[in-house]
Amino acid sequence: MSDNPLYTIMHPSSVVVAGASNNVMKMGSIQAQNLVNAGYKGEIYFLHPTDKEVLGHRAYPTPDELPIAPELALLVTPAKVTLGLIDKLGKRGTRHAVIVTAGFREIGGSGTQLEADLVATAARHDLRFIGPNCIGILNTNIGLNLTVMPYADRPGRLSLISQSGTYVAQLMPYLRERGIRYSQALSVGNSTDIDLVDCLEYLGECEDTAAIIMYIEEIRRGRLFVKTAREVARHKPLVALYVGGTASGARSGLSHTGSLGAPDTLIDGIFEQAGVIRARTVEQLFEWGHTLAVMPVPKGNRIAILTHSGGPATSMADLCDREGLGLPPFSEELQSQIRPLIEPNASARNPVDLTFSLKHGTFVDKIPRILFHSDEIDGVLIHGVMDSGFAMEQYDNIKDRLKISKEEYVRLMVYDLSRLVKMPLESGKPLLASSFMRVDHAAEYFREHDIPLMRYPEAAVLAMSALVRYGAIHRRLEAQGGTVDFPAALPGQTAGGEKKRTVLDEFESKRLLAQYGVPIPHEYKVKSLSEAKKRAAEVGYPIVLKGLPEGVAHKTEAALVHLGITSTKALHEAWRMIEEAAPHCPRLLAGMVRGGRELVVGMTRNRGFGPCVMLGLGGILTEAIRDVTFRAVPVSNDEAREMPDSLRLKRLFDAQRGMLEIDRAILATVITGVGKLALDHPEITEIDINPLIVCGGKPIAVDALVVMEEPEQ
Amino acid sequence: MSDNPLYTIMHPSSVVVAGASNNVMKMGSIQAQNLVNAGYKGEIYFLHPTDKEVLGHRAYPTPDELPIAPELALLVTPAKVTLGLIDKLGKRGTRHAVIVTAGFREIGGSGTQLEADLVATAARHDLRFIGPNCIGILNTNIGLNLTVMPYADRPGRLSLISQSGTYVAQLMPYLRERGIRYSQALSVGNSTDIDLVDCLEYLGECEDTAAIIMYIEEIRRGRLFVKTAREVARHKPLVALYVGGTASGARSGLSHTGSLGAPDTLIDGIFEQAGVIRARTVEQLFEWGHTLAVMPVPKGNRIAILTHSGGPATSMADLCDREGLGLPPFSEELQSQIRPLIEPNASARNPVDLTFSLKHGTFVDKIPRILFHSDEIDGVLIHGVMDSGFAMEQYDNIKDRLKISKEEYVRLMVYDLSRLVKMPLESGKPLLASSFMRVDHAAEYFREHDIPLMRYPEAAVLAMSALVRYGAIHRRLEAQGGTVDFPAALPGQTAGGEKKRTVLDEFESKRLLAQYGVPIPHEYKVKSLSEAKKRAAEVGYPIVLKGLPEGVAHKTEAALVHLGITSTKALHEAWRMIEEAAPHCPRLLAGMVRGGRELVVGMTRNRGFGPCVMLGLGGILTEAIRDVTFRAVPVSNDEAREMPDSLRLKRLFDAQRGMLEIDRAILATVITGVGKLALDHPEITEIDINPLIVCGGKPIAVDALVVMEEPEQ
Repeated sequence: MSDNPLYTIMHPSSVVVAGASNNVMKMGSIQAQNLVNAGYKGEIYFLHPTDKEVLGHRAYPTPDELPIAPELALLVTPAKVTLGLIDKLGKRGTRHAVIVTAGFREIGGSGTQLEADLVATAARHDLRFIGPNCIGILNTNIGLNLTVMPYADRPGRLSLISQSGTYVAQLMPYLRERGIRYSQALSVGNSTDIDLVDCLEYLGECEDTAAIIMYIEEIRRGRLFVKTAREVARHKPLVALYVGGTASGARSGLSHTGSLGAPDTLIDGIFEQAGVIRARTVEQLFEWGHTLAVMPVPKGNRIAILTHSGGPATSMADLCDREGLGLPPFSEELQSQIRPLIEPNASARNPVDLTFSLKHGTFVDKIPRILFHSDEIDGVLIHGVMDSGFAMEQYDNIKDRLKISKEEYVRLMVYDLSRLVKMPLESGKPLLASSFMRVDHAAEYFREHDIPLMRYPEAAVLAMSALVRYGAIHRRLEAQGGTVDFPAALPGQTAGGEKKRTVLDEFESKRLLAQYGVPIPHEYKVKSLSEAKKRAAEVGYPIVLKGLPEGVAHKTEAALVHLGITSTKALHEAWRMIEEAAPHCPRLLAGMVRGGRELVVGMTRNRGFGPCVMLGLGGILTEAIRDVTFRAVPVSNDEAREMPDSLRLKRLFDAQRGMLEIDRAILATVITGVGKLALDHPEITEIDINPLIVCGGKPIAVDALVVMEEPEQ
Repeated sequence: MSDNPLYTIMHPSSVVVAGASNNVMKMGSIQAQNLVNAGYKGEIYFLHPTDKEVLGHRAYPTPDELPIAPELALLVTPAKVTLGLIDKLGKRGTRHAVIVTAGFREIGGSGTQLEADLVATAARHDLRFIGPNCIGILNTNIGLNLTVMPYADRPGRLSLISQSGTYVAQLMPYLRERGIRYSQALSVGNSTDIDLVDCLEYLGECEDTAAIIMYIEEIRRGRLFVKTAREVARHKPLVALYVGGTASGARSGLSHTGSLGAPDTLIDGIFEQAGVIRARTVEQLFEWGHTLAVMPVPKGNRIAILTHSGGPATSMADLCDREGLGLPPFSEELQSQIRPLIEPNASARNPVDLTFSLKHGTFVDKIPRILFHSDEIDGVLIHGVMDSGFAMEQYDNIKDRLKISKEEYVRLMVYDLSRLVKMPLESGKPLLASSFMRVDHAAEYFREHDIPLMRYPEAAVLAMSALVRYGAIHRRLEAQGGTVDFPAALPGQTAGGEKKRTVLDEFESKRLLAQYGVPIPHEYKVKSLSEAKKRAAEVGYPIVLKGLPEGVAHKTEAALVHLGITSTKALHEAWRMIEEAAPHCPRLLAGMVRGGRELVVGMTRNRGFGPCVMLGLGGILTEAIRDVTFRAVPVSNDEAREMPDSLRLKRLFDAQRGMLEIDRAILATVITGVGKLALDHPEITEIDINPLIVCGGKPIAVDALVVMEEPEQ
């Protein structure tokens, strides 16, 4: 932390702004005005070529005339001016900058060169910067607002790292409507110097931040991301929206920040490994992040639903099941506490459905108190608390009959929610609300008191599910704590030059894998038919004979594989056919392995993430099923054992009709072994064990391929 | 249509209300007040035991004193009063009622009896009714509002059928906020007389309704639902939220309307077959329904995205890919039309990203005009049109410098959207918008002019996807039009009494299926070992020998199945082992069928839906994979050919490494044949072909089971 420049950037004692003027229709001026008005207590200076005063503050023509070296500079200047300014600010002693200026790498061509020059210039002065091409930063705790939108709320506990400026600033009204409050927000722009990982490290240690959300188009320092995220996620929830994994997402990202996305499936595995909860929309990103920032983490997944309408109760119950949340029917004892409080026809089982009722105290106090105190429940969902909004909807319609004023009527209808909003922290159990009413006293009260209020019932279930998932992540990372030393950087392959590609044949590939603990069949490389007969007798029929001519990747299609050979005669025939297809090629002879399930374990190297192991469903259907999951290497034994749970068809690993449960200990040995091999040998670019047949519950590598790349000698 | 009572219920010339009083804090009075105030032009009467006037209208003590027989009665009376009133209203000549009263079937016990009595009473007078236990109905076109919430908007083109009253009434403020307008809405309550299907039929023919949405906990007349929905969906979009398919959903539903859900997977297939788009949340239900009601249906899936911020552009692009929407990079010609209008650094490719820009006319007129005219595009998404809201956010911050009033400033910032909102109907291409700003002139203008405005960019993509899916449904149903005669009712099995369950053995099951066109292996039932040897020679080794003792369902586990017998010696051994396991049992001898892929085709009878055929991935992993899809019988040949596309692992049906594409013509013969067998034989309760092995691309039934149930003689 000590050397993370973000501590100073987010808490500067003084800020100098370049690119603002007294014309507040310009972007730089809007940003400066936000800084001036937001209550920031540090010193503010302006740079302006001609004006002596900008927005009420003294302006200086050049950095060297500044009375002090400001801790932080904000630059909203044209690109070509920016470089010179950075140089002069560096000379003056400024060591930190936020560069909003666009026109660098994201436009390609000359912009890329300009960005390289910017890096060199900043480096000369040890000046660290966010941007360029960003929308600025926000620290609500000290009134530091360097974005284009005013932040009109008190500080919250949620912090954002975003590769899009829009998601920092333009949605502030959207957040205010929802009662979602920022602690801090960082727009990282081109991430030229300070990037996502620096921000994650900083916010992970930031005491004002209870949860972190990330909008990601690209992860550049992948290994460090995994390492850092995993450390942070142990004690602080992380939610991310990653949009660079599809062809269109990557293309659109490219068009505006020069990013290049990692494949979506890789990211799914990386997030799983790092303990990052993946959101699918920007709404989920903020709703889940907010929920995780303000609510206690539930100890289990047993949820209670409280409503006075059957439709929302049922919609929520249905979605709880889909999300794997438990909705336990209450015990007779718990029901007997609730029943006296509700109408005879209402349900006390879970969901608790009061049906149409005007007994406010029952709905928002008496029953919740019972639920929060019960040890049958880990969290509570409440739908339909709406009071003044409902009253106002009705008032005009019935006012002629009511004989009371609107104010009196509304007062009659308003709930006392003061006890309800305290229950989550008192009990350590989360409370999430949903309501169809926004302009409403109850809605306002929930927003004010940090009870997440969703716009429709299913959104509350999904946010509860995020809480429950974080609980599991927290417990898993605590349990795994420190079992894997995950190096953030690895010895790379020699860069540049021609590479020599070597493909080990199946026999050599398996021998190498066997040294790392991967089970392989009893097998021999045989040179003659007579040797083959001898070995066949040793191994025992039925056997397998394969031709291994150099450079043939798909042996099956080239008629080089002969399975289920049951006799010497059949062996003769297979030998002859291979000889015909590939004369004099080496032969591999092995015992026949049969099994109902085929897996695949592999390793690829991915830009930023280094070697990643893959587990999936294998055999000839691998491509069609495409059910795989990745982890960056090394993976611990525990992580490897849990990898099957990330597959869609994870049930295949359980005992099946006539088949045993797949032995996860052996599977973990294979996965961790492949990972270790990749770490020991940077020249190995690819490993593919396919199929890894499951025979009597035990995985065994029946075919394998290892590919190496070494610089030409 | 002529005999559908809903035409009169939704357009009554007169209404009588029972259960309202001058105390407007009571539910009945609130409903009556809505009727009185909503502009309904028909006659309104009240029934009240003592008061002479209710809410300004004359009240009568009993129905027989009413001056006319009102066309429609609204009852919000206590349950025990309701029955007597229905009887008296019937006597007076009223033939239609909306019964809001609760306390019937949904509470069980005496309520169930009361509901039976209600049915009998109504039937005596040919009186048709909605409810009981509903929240009422709404026809905005004639100011008929019999719900508990005022409807404060002009009529729309979207109609709702709901098994929850909340989703009719309580969310009206939520709808108004979104510019979603009802044409009509029906709360069906217990669906005792008029149900979901009646409503669907009525709204399908209703000229004021352009799209229909449904909230469903239970489908009772399943076959008629499929038939009716399919007819309606050909010309009118249908969207449904079904929540009765999970254990918790079904339990919660049960607790308040006495429903019993059908399994979720069955409903997925039924909706596919009937052309119903399935929503997953109530928000999607309304947003998609609204979009389908107001926007033209796109001819293809090629979408253009227009924004001035990269984050939302990329979020939308990423989701377009996931949803199967095309995001074509624009042709050079199209880009050259756009490029002169935007900044040099902005993207003209798709997404079109203007970056920060105040050129309103370019964003909301010039570029959209080009996009709507281009034949490269079928629909347009626009994110980030926000004007007065954005201006007002900024104003307080910069007002000291601006020197113009808030009104002037806002006027400067407001977009002219008048041309944009006309483009969809002029071009026949949909436009969907999203914005983070709700209190905003542009947002207001969109809502007013029926441009769906979503709260975040991904929601607009999902609604566009619903439009594209409806386009495909419309074309498919048009193409299939009339090829299947789908009977709404089928001859049932004899009800009651002891049933005799007969399980045909594998040999008999396959012979029966073969008569319906299902391919089976070359096979014989053999009585002796010598016969077996003879038949084996005929069939050719390798062969299969199975023992078929009566009543053994899982032959594999009972050691009765011997595959891959390659010699007479092995045949002897297999014969002996079967004899040991099940002495003297019949044996089936067949040619060995090998194949890499195994399917399952089956038939089950489901309450309401009758016989349904199932297609899935088969073999011993059926249960683990659980990838199956259902259709109600009969299915047309075209429908059967398309069934694999409903499976998650549909890629398995394509050509694979070393395997041919699965022959869909043969597969369709199997599926339609199984369906026809079920229709011809109501006594068959279950058919299971598993595995249906794919050998050289051709499916062949390798094991099968037919179960019958007939009344004991």
